[in-house]
Amino acid sequence: MIRVALLGAGRIGQVHAKSITANDDCQLVAVADALPQAAQDLAAQIGAEVRSIDEILADDSIQAVLIATSTDTHSDLIERATAAGKAVLCEKPVDLSLDRALAALKAAEGTGQPVMVGFNRRFDPNFAALKAAFDGGEIGKGELLSITSYDPAPPPVSYVKVSGGLFRDMMIHDFDMACWVFGGPPARVTATGSAIVDPEIGAAGDVDTAAVTLQWDDGRIGVIKNSRRAGYGYDQRIELLGSKGLLSAKNVLENTVEKISAEGASAAKPVYFFLERYMRAYEIEWTAFIDALKSGDTMPVTLREGVAALACAEAATKSAQTGETVAITADMLGPA
Amino acid sequence: MIRVALLGAGRIGQVHAKSITANDDCQLVAVADALPQAAQDLAAQIGAEVRSIDEILADDSIQAVLIATSTDTHSDLIERATAAGKAVLCEKPVDLSLDRALAALKAAEGTGQPVMVGFNRRFDPNFAALKAAFDGGEIGKGELLSITSYDPAPPPVSYVKVSGGLFRDMMIHDFDMACWVFGGPPARVTATGSAIVDPEIGAAGDVDTAAVTLQWDDGRIGVIKNSRRAGYGYDQRIELLGSKGLLSAKNVLENTVEKISAEGASAAKPVYFFLERYMRAYEIEWTAFIDALKSGDTMPVTLREGVAALACAEAATKSAQTGETVAITADMLGPA
Amino acid sequence: MIRVALLGAGRIGQVHAKSITANDDCQLVAVADALPQAAQDLAAQIGAEVRSIDEILADDSIQAVLIATSTDTHSDLIERATAAGKAVLCEKPVDLSLDRALAALKAAEGTGQPVMVGFNRRFDPNFAALKAAFDGGEIGKGELLSITSYDPAPPPVSYVKVSGGLFRDMMIHDFDMACWVFGGPPARVTATGSAIVDPEIGAAGDVDTAAVTLQWDDGRIGVIKNSRRAGYGYDQRIELLGSKGLLSAKNVLENTVEKISAEGASAAKPVYFFLERYMRAYEIEWTAFIDALKSGDTMPVTLREGVAALACAEAATKSAQTGETVAITADMLGPA
Amino acid sequence: MIRVALLGAGRIGQVHAKSITANDDCQLVAVADALPQAAQDLAAQIGAEVRSIDEILADDSIQAVLIATSTDTHSDLIERATAAGKAVLCEKPVDLSLDRALAALKAAEGTGQPVMVGFNRRFDPNFAALKAAFDGGEIGKGELLSITSYDPAPPPVSYVKVSGGLFRDMMIHDFDMACWVFGGPPARVTATGSAIVDPEIGAAGDVDTAAVTLQWDDGRIGVIKNSRRAGYGYDQRIELLGSKGLLSAKNVLENTVEKISAEGASAAKPVYFFLERYMRAYEIEWTAFIDALKSGDTMPVTLREGVAALACAEAATKSAQTGETVAITADMLGPA
Repeated sequence: MIRVALLGAGRIGQVHAKSITANDDCQLVAVADALPQAAQDLAAQIGAEVRSIDEILADDSIQAVLIATSTDTHSDLIERATAAGKAVLCEKPVDLSLDRALAALKAAEGTGQPVMVGFNRRFDPNFAALKAAFDGGEIGKGELLSITSYDPAPPPVSYVKVSGGLFRDMMIHDFDMACWVFGGPPARVTATGSAIVDPEIGAAGDVDTAAVTLQWDDGRIGVIKNSRRAGYGYDQRIELLGSKGLLSAKNVLENTVEKISAEGASAAKPVYFFLERYMRAYEIEWTAFIDALKSGDTMPVTLREGVAALACAEAATKSAQTGETVAITADMLGPA
Repeated sequence: MIRVALLGAGRIGQVHAKSITANDDCQLVAVADALPQAAQDLAAQIGAEVRSIDEILADDSIQAVLIATSTDTHSDLIERATAAGKAVLCEKPVDLSLDRALAALKAAEGTGQPVMVGFNRRFDPNFAALKAAFDGGEIGKGELLSITSYDPAPPPVSYVKVSGGLFRDMMIHDFDMACWVFGGPPARVTATGSAIVDPEIGAAGDVDTAAVTLQWDDGRIGVIKNSRRAGYGYDQRIELLGSKGLLSAKNVLENTVEKISAEGASAAKPVYFFLERYMRAYEIEWTAFIDALKSGDTMPVTLREGVAALACAEAATKSAQTGETVAITADMLGPA
Repeated sequence: MIRVALLGAGRIGQVHAKSITANDDCQLVAVADALPQAAQDLAAQIGAEVRSIDEILADDSIQAVLIATSTDTHSDLIERATAAGKAVLCEKPVDLSLDRALAALKAAEGTGQPVMVGFNRRFDPNFAALKAAFDGGEIGKGELLSITSYDPAPPPVSYVKVSGGLFRDMMIHDFDMACWVFGGPPARVTATGSAIVDPEIGAAGDVDTAAVTLQWDDGRIGVIKNSRRAGYGYDQRIELLGSKGLLSAKNVLENTVEKISAEGASAAKPVYFFLERYMRAYEIEWTAFIDALKSGDTMPVTLREGVAALACAEAATKSAQTGETVAITADMLGPA
Repeated sequence: MIRVALLGAGRIGQVHAKSITANDDCQLVAVADALPQAAQDLAAQIGAEVRSIDEILADDSIQAVLIATSTDTHSDLIERATAAGKAVLCEKPVDLSLDRALAALKAAEGTGQPVMVGFNRRFDPNFAALKAAFDGGEIGKGELLSITSYDPAPPPVSYVKVSGGLFRDMMIHDFDMACWVFGGPPARVTATGSAIVDPEIGAAGDVDTAAVTLQWDDGRIGVIKNSRRAGYGYDQRIELLGSKGLLSAKNVLENTVEKISAEGASAAKPVYFFLERYMRAYEIEWTAFIDALKSGDTMPVTLREGVAALACAEAATKSAQTGETVAITADMLGPA
C-alpha cells in the first residue's frame, strides 16, 4: 500500500483525490492547501488528514506526492519533494519558465526519484487506441500529424494574464501529444496566433486562436490548431497520416441519438469540457503512475518530456511574435 | 438514509451492490444468498452483514429489498417482501408464468407497497435521450418503432432449457422498451422465430433468431428483432419513425478511432455485452428507485408494467408456435 | 446495334429514354404512348419516331421493347411482344393480379424470348455492394435481413385506389430485394398494416404503414418496414445479420456537410425521392439488360422473379387482412 | 447559342468537352491541340472540327475559348484570346510565374473580355454547401479554416520537375479555396514542407508533404495540409470554425455499405481521384461560366482571383525555403 499526499485541494486536486481513493494499491493520507478550508473540506470528504507541505515532506512514511498546486510552485515542489525522497506526479505545465523547469529537471534527476508529469490526454482511451494502432504499424510510417484542440469558452482575462499565454497554458497539452505520438520533440516550430475571439485577450498580450507547425528532422510534420472558444463544447481530435493510411480519433459525444426531419439530420454535440471528456483518463493516469512505482518501470510521462513540451511552447511563443521558425535546440531539452 | 437488503449475490446482485453503495441516500445493510459463500464474499467486500431472507424480512429497520435471486423465486419474494412492508426493486422478468405474475401483482398491489421492476435499459442515457426527444414532440406522433437487440453469443443450451424461451428471457427487455416508448402495451402480437444459430437450441424447443410485430389499437406498429449471436458484440438500437421525422439511438462503440487505408475505412465495434453497455444504466436505475421512494412518486417501472412485458412474451411465444396473431387482452395485464 | 422501342412516354418512360440513348450498344428508334402529345414530345427530344404499339411489334428490325405503360397493360404487352419475337424489359410490377401474371409468365416462357423485370434497386451501387460483400462470404451465412423503405410523402388517394395496395405497389420492390439477397422466395409471409398516416388511405381499403416478416424454409428471417410518409425524404436501407457479422447499406445524403453548434450537430438528410436516389441505378439496369441480350446470358431479373415478388405481395395482402401467416406455395411461383 | 472552341485535347480537355456538349446554351465547334491525333480523336467523338489556334482566334463567330493546354501557354493564350475578343475559361494555374501572370492580367483586363479561372472545387456541391451555410451566417464570423487535400499517389518525378512545385501545382487549389471561403487573399503566408513520401521528389527540389498557415489582417487563420500520397484515395475536406460553431465538408465515399464483425466496423473509402470526385463540379463550373456570359455578370472565379492564388503559392514557396513568414503585398495581386 503506497502512502500518498495530495498538494493542492482545488478543482483539479479534487479530481485527483477521486482517482487516488479509487486505486486499491495506494492510500491518500494527507492533503495540503494554501487555503485551510479547501484542504479541510476535501480531507473530510475522503477521510484524510490536513497537513502542511513541510509536514508531508518530512513524513518518511509518505512515498508519493501529487502536486496540484498553482503552476508557479511546481518547480520548487518537484525539487523539494524529490529531495525528500518522494516520487512525484506533477500537474502540467512543469513551469511557465523553461529555464526554471530545466533547473528543476536537473535537480530532480540528481535525486533519482521518479517524476511523472500529468499529461492526462495520453491516457484517454481514444487517443491511446490511436497511438496503439500507429505503434502497431497499422498505417506505416507517420508523416503528417494534426491535432485539433478547442476549449468551449475562453477563460477570464484575469486568468489569461497570469497563464503564461496560450502556447504554455493550453497548447502545452498538444505539444506533448505530438511529441508522444512521434516519439520525441520536433526540430523546428512555427506559430501563428491571433486574438480574434476576444480583443481583451489581445490587449493582455495573448492570442486566443492559433496554428502551429512542427517539423521533425526526418521531415515529419505536425500541425496543431487551438481555439479558446468552440462554443459547442470541447473539441479534441487527432488525425495522423501515415505511409499506408490515416488514423483519426474523433470526439466523444453526449449520446448516440440521431434525428432526421425535413430540416436535416441532427445528433449530439461533443461533451462539454475536460471533466466530462477526461475523467476516465485521470483515473488511468493515476493507475499508470502507481503501477510504474510498484514495478520500478520508467514513468509513462517523464519530467524530461514535460520539459520538452514546455520547450515547444517557448519556441511557439517566440515564433508567433517574430514570424520566424524557431529551432528546438538540445539545450532546451535538458542536460545531456 | 434508506436501509436496504440485497437478496441474491450472484453476477447481477454484485452489479446492484455497487450501485447501492454508490448512492448517498441509502445504505446496504444485509446480503442474503442461497450460497453462503457468495453472500459472505459480497458482504465482506461492501461492509454489510450476511443474513437469511427471513431475518431480513423480519427486520423493520430495513425499508427496501432488491431481489436479484433466480427468476423462479421472484413472485414469492415480491409477495413476501411487500407483505412485510418493504419497498421492492425486482430484477426482470417478474416470472416465467404470466398467471403466477398476475397473482403476485394482485398480492403486491394489495399491500400498497411500491414495487419497481428492473428494466435497466430505460435508464440507458442514449435510450432515455431518444425517449425524451420523442416525448418532447421532436418527431410528432409515433408511428413505427423498431428495436434491434442482439446478444454477442448464445448462452449454454442448459441455460436455454430453463430460461422460459427467447421471448420471455431475452425479448422481455424489448417488449418493455416498446411499451415504454409508446406509453402502454400493444393490442396484438405476431411472432416468427427460428433456431438458425444453434440447432441444439431448436432441439431444446426454443428459437435463437426472431422477429416480432406489435400493433397498437390506434394503428401504431412496433418491430422487434432478436438474435442470440451477433458475433461482433452487443447490438442495441432503437429507431422510431414519427409523423415529422425519425429518431434513432445507435450503439455505444469501444472507442472513437477510425482508420482509412487502401483496404477501406474501419472503426471500433460496439462494446461487447451488457455490463459494458449498461453499467451506467444500472446506477441510474437504482437512483431512480431511491428517488421515487424518497418522494413518494410512482415507481419509474411499475410491477404492472413488468407484467405487461410478460404478457407480450407469452403472446409472442404462442404466436411463433401457431403462426397466428395473438391479442393482448385486458385480463393478461392485471386486475382492473 | 440493338434497335429498341419504348412503350410509354410518361415520367418513368422519360427516365428510361435517357438510359437508352446513353448506351452505345443500342438505339432508341420508336416511342409509343396512348397520349400522342407525350409520345411526340419525347420522340422529338431524343430523335426517335412516334409509332403505334402495333407498328412497333410488326417491325422485325426492332429487337427489344421497354414496357413503361400503365400496370394494367403489362401482362398483355409482355405476351404480345414476346410473341412478336422481341426481348422485353418491363417495369414493375408485372401485374396486380398474380393469376394474370402467371398466365403471362407461361406464355412468355413459351416463346423463349428473354424478359427482364425492372427492379431498379438491385442496380443501386450501394445495394449491389452489400450483395457482393454478402455473396463474397464476408459475414458468413445470412440469418436476419431487414429492409427499411419509406417514401417521402403519400401519393394521392386517387392513385392509392388503383394501385393494388401498398404491398403490391410499394413493398413489391422490397419483396424482390429480399428474394434477391437470399437467393429465392420465402416459404411464409406474415404482415401487419395500418392506415396511420392518412385515414383516407384507410377508407380506401389500404394501409400506409406496414411491417412484414418473411421466413425461409431453412429458418432465415426477413423483416420489411414500409411507410408512405417519412417526411424527410426517401429512406432506403438494408441491413443483414449473418453468422459472422452485420452488413448495412445506408442512405445517400444530399451532401457531406456537417455542422456543430451549441444546439448540437447537424448534417444533410437523405436525397428526396427515387429519381435522385436511383437515377444511376436505372442506367445500370438498362446496361445490364443490353449486356445480357448481347451475351445471351440469363436476364439479371427474370420474369419468374417478378412473379415471385408479386406472390409475396399477394400473401402479405392476405396476411394483413386475416392476421394469419400465409404460405408461398409452388403454384404461386409459376409452372414447374 | 454560344459558339465555343476548346484549346487542348488532353485528359482535362476531354473532361471539359463533355461538360461543353452537355450544356444546351453552347456548342463546341472546334478543337485544337499540338498533337493532331489527339485533336482529331476528340473532335470526331463530339462532332466538332479540328482547327489551329490561329484559325480559332480569327473566327469571329466563336465567342468563347476554353484553355486546357499546358500551363506554360496559359498566359499567352489568355492574352491572345481576350485580344481577339473571346471570353475565356482557363484551367488552373494561370501561370507558374507570378510576374508573367500579372502581365497577362493587365493585358486581359485591358480588353474588357471576361476571363474565368478553372478552380473546379468551388463548384463541388459539398464545398458549395459549406460556403453557402457559412455565408448564410450559420456559424457566425469565420475564425479558423482548415483544408485537407491529399492525392492518392505522387506523380512521376519527371512531372514534378516541370510542375512548378507542390505549392504552385497542387496547393494552388487550396489557396483558392481559402481565398474564396474568406472572401479575399490573406496578408501573410507561412509554409513548412518535406520530401518524406519520395526522396526523388526532394532530390528534384520539391516537397511532397506540406503544411501552410495563412493569416488575414483581421486575425483570421487558415491552415492547409497537402500530401502527394494518401494511399487510400483522394482526401478532400474543409473545416471551418466560426464564432458560433463548426462547419465541415467530408469526403465522398465509394458507397454507403458498412460492415461490423468481430474484427471491428468497416466502410468504404473515399473515391479514388479527382475525376471520380469532381466530375460533377466540372459540369457545374462550365454552366456557371456560360451563365455568367449570358447574363453579363462577373465571372464566378476571376482572373484576379487566379493571380491571388498564385501569389499565395509564390509566398509559400519562398516561406518554405527561408523559414520566414512572407507577406502578400498589394503589387502581388494585380494593378490597382
